Amino acid sequence: MAERKVAVVMGSDSDLPTVQGAIDTLKEFGIATEVHVMSAHRTPKQACEFAAAARENGFAVIIAAAGKAAHLAGVLAAHTTLPVIGIPIKSSTLDGLDALLATVQMPGGIPVATVAIDGAQNAGLLAAQIIGVYDAEVAYKLGIHKLEMEKKVMEKDAKIQEMFK
Amino acid sequence: MAERKVAVVMGSDSDLPTVQGAIDTLKEFGIATEVHVMSAHRTPKQACEFAAAARENGFAVIIAAAGKAAHLAGVLAAHTTLPVIGIPIKSSTLDGLDALLATVQMPGGIPVATVAIDGAQNAGLLAAQIIGVYDAEVAYKLGIHKLEMEKKVMEKDAKIQEMFK
Amino acid sequence: MAERKVAVVMGSDSDLPTVQGAIDTLKEFGIATEVHVMSAHRTPKQACEFAAAARENGFAVIIAAAGKAAHLAGVLAAHTTLPVIGIPIKSSTLDGLDALLATVQMPGGIPVATVAIDGAQNAGLLAAQIIGVYDAEVAYKLGIHKLEMEKKVMEKDAKIQEMFK
Amino acid sequence: MAERKVAVVMGSDSDLPTVQGAIDTLKEFGIATEVHVMSAHRTPKQACEFAAAARENGFAVIIAAAGKAAHLAGVLAAHTTLPVIGIPIKSSTLDGLDALLATVQMPGGIPVATVAIDGAQNAGLLAAQIIGVYDAEVAYKLGIHKLEMEKKVMEKDAKIQEMFK
Amino acid sequence: MAERKVAVVMGSDSDLPTVQGAIDTLKEFGIATEVHVMSAHRTPKQACEFAAAARENGFAVIIAAAGKAAHLAGVLAAHTTLPVIGIPIKSSTLDGLDALLATVQMPGGIPVATVAIDGAQNAGLLAAQIIGVYDAEVAYKLGIHKLEMEKKVMEKDAKIQEMFK
Amino acid sequence: MAERKVAVVMGSDSDLPTVQGAIDTLKEFGIATEVHVMSAHRTPKQACEFAAAARENGFAVIIAAAGKAAHLAGVLAAHTTLPVIGIPIKSSTLDGLDALLATVQMPGGIPVATVAIDGAQNAGLLAAQIIGVYDAEVAYKLGIHKLEMEKKVMEKDAKIQEMFK
Amino acid sequence: MAERKVAVVMGSDSDLPTVQGAIDTLKEFGIATEVHVMSAHRTPKQACEFAAAARENGFAVIIAAAGKAAHLAGVLAAHTTLPVIGIPIKSSTLDGLDALLATVQMPGGIPVATVAIDGAQNAGLLAAQIIGVYDAEVAYKLGIHKLEMEKKVMEKDAKIQEMFK
Amino acid sequence: MAERKVAVVMGSDSDLPTVQGAIDTLKEFGIATEVHVMSAHRTPKQACEFAAAARENGFAVIIAAAGKAAHLAGVLAAHTTLPVIGIPIKSSTLDGLDALLATVQMPGGIPVATVAIDGAQNAGLLAAQIIGVYDAEVAYKLGIHKLEMEKKVMEKDAKIQEMFK
Repeated sequence: MAERKVAVVMGSDSDLPTVQGAIDTLKEFGIATEVHVMSAHRTPKQACEFAAAARENGFAVIIAAAGKAAHLAGVLAAHTTLPVIGIPIKSSTLDGLDALLATVQMPGGIPVATVAIDGAQNAGLLAAQIIGVYDAEVAYKLGIHKLEMEKKVMEKDAKIQEMFK
Repeated sequence: MAERKVAVVMGSDSDLPTVQGAIDTLKEFGIATEVHVMSAHRTPKQACEFAAAARENGFAVIIAAAGKAAHLAGVLAAHTTLPVIGIPIKSSTLDGLDALLATVQMPGGIPVATVAIDGAQNAGLLAAQIIGVYDAEVAYKLGIHKLEMEKKVMEKDAKIQEMFK
Repeated sequence: MAERKVAVVMGSDSDLPTVQGAIDTLKEFGIATEVHVMSAHRTPKQACEFAAAARENGFAVIIAAAGKAAHLAGVLAAHTTLPVIGIPIKSSTLDGLDALLATVQMPGGIPVATVAIDGAQNAGLLAAQIIGVYDAEVAYKLGIHKLEMEKKVMEKDAKIQEMFK
Repeated sequence: MAERKVAVVMGSDSDLPTVQGAIDTLKEFGIATEVHVMSAHRTPKQACEFAAAARENGFAVIIAAAGKAAHLAGVLAAHTTLPVIGIPIKSSTLDGLDALLATVQMPGGIPVATVAIDGAQNAGLLAAQIIGVYDAEVAYKLGIHKLEMEKKVMEKDAKIQEMFK
Repeated sequence: MAERKVAVVMGSDSDLPTVQGAIDTLKEFGIATEVHVMSAHRTPKQACEFAAAARENGFAVIIAAAGKAAHLAGVLAAHTTLPVIGIPIKSSTLDGLDALLATVQMPGGIPVATVAIDGAQNAGLLAAQIIGVYDAEVAYKLGIHKLEMEKKVMEKDAKIQEMFK
Repeated sequence: MAERKVAVVMGSDSDLPTVQGAIDTLKEFGIATEVHVMSAHRTPKQACEFAAAARENGFAVIIAAAGKAAHLAGVLAAHTTLPVIGIPIKSSTLDGLDALLATVQMPGGIPVATVAIDGAQNAGLLAAQIIGVYDAEVAYKLGIHKLEMEKKVMEKDAKIQEMFK
Repeated sequence: MAERKVAVVMGSDSDLPTVQGAIDTLKEFGIATEVHVMSAHRTPKQACEFAAAARENGFAVIIAAAGKAAHLAGVLAAHTTLPVIGIPIKSSTLDGLDALLATVQMPGGIPVATVAIDGAQNAGLLAAQIIGVYDAEVAYKLGIHKLEMEKKVMEKDAKIQEMFK
Repeated sequence: MAERKVAVVMGSDSDLPTVQGAIDTLKEFGIATEVHVMSAHRTPKQACEFAAAARENGFAVIIAAAGKAAHLAGVLAAHTTLPVIGIPIKSSTLDGLDALLATVQMPGGIPVATVAIDGAQNAGLLAAQIIGVYDAEVAYKLGIHKLEMEKKVMEKDAKIQEMFK
């Protein structure tokens, strides 16, 4: 049977507060995660070896978060055929546009599934959706999660309609 | 056993020349595809119903391509918990930046796995990678494809080294 | 006789402080408003049904405010032939450019009348101007409002001329 | 009874090929139009007087198209309380971004209902939607137009499904 | 003999803290100034009349500061043949890019001499330079000012060389 | 009596087709011009010496046109207290945005009067406006030129009204 | 004695027409070059090994050219302490902005010496300047080259002065 | 034997807190530095003379930091054939994009080795890498520095793996 373990790799431990949203979401769906700090530039060997061995080590998906000239997701994707999800991290200049373009504009042959700038929660959800393609339990939880989101917005709608009646 | 059928949905039939890259790639990996023209704005009901029924109709992944204020991928993602891959299409103004931001900057709860502007081939590959998580045949073909890409670049390297010796 | 009720829909209740400017402006012009939280992605069915029934429910105009990949205005516009006014909301990254492009760059057939980023007051005024086309009372109030704006700026001009004499 | 005449004003006669889409759309809906070349900068007096007298001259809506530092829509809006629709025109540099920002980013008090860059067809449709708020015939035609758009996309969908079966 | 009076016009009194730099600089050069709040959109008539009469009222240059879709400088320039200097003001979104493009990208026939975003001091200096073309006293002061700037930087250079010796 | 000679300096002779608009406009106003190719980077000494001596050589204004990291206008402005007008030239990448920012975003103390990207005609007009502050003949011609622009637009308006009657 | 061999690495052989400018420049300065096609994503191992061994294989500088999410220069820099020069290549969308940001915005610890978009000639010159720090012959040639550039511009200046006399 | 002294030049002493990262890095590698405040616009003569004499005064590399229309690095590069490293400094508007483009987009013939916005540490490292091409001691220290960076990231990785076990 296929695996449902996910790797969450961040380029710097300073990205943790943003990346936490992915870790929490995966936990919420009961998906095992392994969290790493690895840098495409400072520990390139570790990053490449990790990606190259990820499938046989039981990972289904790799999530990679990095800022500025964000190469991490692309470099991991170069060494695996597992789906790699990229989270562009906003840093002190350019409002995250640099990380977004460096993550999403991958050349033909090596895709990175890019989510919004700082969109860690969605990276976790997307990993769950990928696992949910073949894992009925995760798929079921995704359906419940969607209904709960809907319910919360409907409650807010009721409340705000009341407020402005 | 999990499905390996993929839907390729484009917002306009004028997107076909670009989207063809996704269709060809999926064919190359032996993945069944269904191709549609559906618009988030002109045929919203059809689009929503298609997405809502996609899982029970045997789809594993939905690829959605659209230009300008590209809502198609997001609207489909709103109606399914399958992974949705978004291809931002470059149109006559703003060089694709509008479609990129409208596709990738999804709010929390509804991810879209975004690839590069006009990056249809990578959308097909990403769908294959998702299926390859649980389908050993597709995973094997992805490994072969990676080796072939490597080989082609190495041949070009040899040729260009020769040229400038 | 034609209606003069306006719907103000926001994608998230966190948008309320910005959207308040539209609600206050409509109140100032004596235009009935109904305020909603609806999401193109989390409550798509509610949003679509609301838009589809808006004309027969007596609405003249829909104002929709959303941030990031702001699909709300476009999705509502897909289900109605009433004029839909879009307010792009600035969020934590990209300074509102994502919401602006996702709101204004609508494909042919489905217009969204877009105002400035966070331009809620102008969205309210634009709705009043639309109603003022056929409602003489609102048109009269718009004329008065314009004169008052002019007067205020003239008073400030007199004051600042004095200050620098 | 309220008027249903629309003014289409362009900043330069070189904008006509783009603006034609608005004129054709208005004709299709049986809405009387008056077409002008007026410049916020070269014929400011004519433009201001035209806008100031537009309501009493029987206009319901003004559509204004201009490129570069596109002030035309804003300048017209400064002299009327009718709804003004702005079409940002792409010129030889910056891909229309200059015209978009100069049209949409209006300060509080003077809204311009902005459509997509070069989005003349949608400007015409939006004018029709505004008139359709109080004019049942135009509203009816807008409904028919929406159904026809839907039908066309569905036909293309059928065709493309066939092509890739 | 030619005049050396300068008008400083701001679109809103909230721009005063930024615009103050222009007023102070003109004072430093002994150039008479008249300061106004005038809006291209809220007091268009006052703005147009002011510009139209500026030459015969003894002004040599008009400085205009505005934010967002900054039409003020262009609208004043439309009504005079005096040189108009535009200061794009940064507002709460888009970091001043909207005001810059709306000020500088003027169509052929109506130039606006644009300085940097929030560059009020340079607007004052540019006005002084224009007057200095024909006014020997102002030209002399500009030369002195340049030498003083040079001296200040040289002193800082000496200090910082010392610090890192 | 003050001078009315203008220098037109371009960074490369390949800019001539664009810059021609400035030369023609100055000729139209009977203003003597001297045209140069000088580079802030390739002939920096010549450029600096030219600017330093420009006032005593009888120039009233310097127009400088350059593309990419367009330093020419700023470098000339560093060596003179005459007004320097900058024309940002669009080159093969980035659509002129690089030249615009490198020309207009001058630090405090050294203004460059920036016109639109490729806006050579307006650079010529702005130089004429500066000379027109103290030269009655040029001022008179500027008034005539304004009336002729107005007349041309009015004729086009009449023609287009006719076309769509 | 230190080496003066330079590696020119391009991400795709389709970049050759642009990269040729670097190769030609290095040849002009008598600097030995080795030209490669290597991809950060398709042949990551080859690229990493090449960079890791570059110093002991006698290279002084590596020039890397890539488009889109241009990771090549950064990935090479991660495996060497030689200076790496990055050439961002313009591709079919976004006008080279993606490649520029992905090349220049490197995180602390791993610099890439970035030149202009498509700026291959300058990459070759920069490599020569680096070698010229310790190689008197190359330094001498750089001085001659600078004088020749100056002379060419001065000849063009003379010609254009003549043309407009 | 070749020199290993580096000049660090900043356009304004207010850039010191950012530029300090370059000075500290050079000190860490035992490379002599001379720190200056020089302005391309306020002390152009000093800047040009400094650059012109830099080689014979024993400098190997010049680092130049400037914000806004950042001409400093380009102006220095115009007067020397030593490698010039440019640090674009983020200022109060446009998030450093202006300084980046004004530094990196140099025309053919005059390269500037540009690092990230505010990337002073990398500017220092790049200077060390250039010196390390011919200076074995610096090259050795660069190797050690790379290993230490790697070690630090690996320690963080171990710590974060522990945290999420």
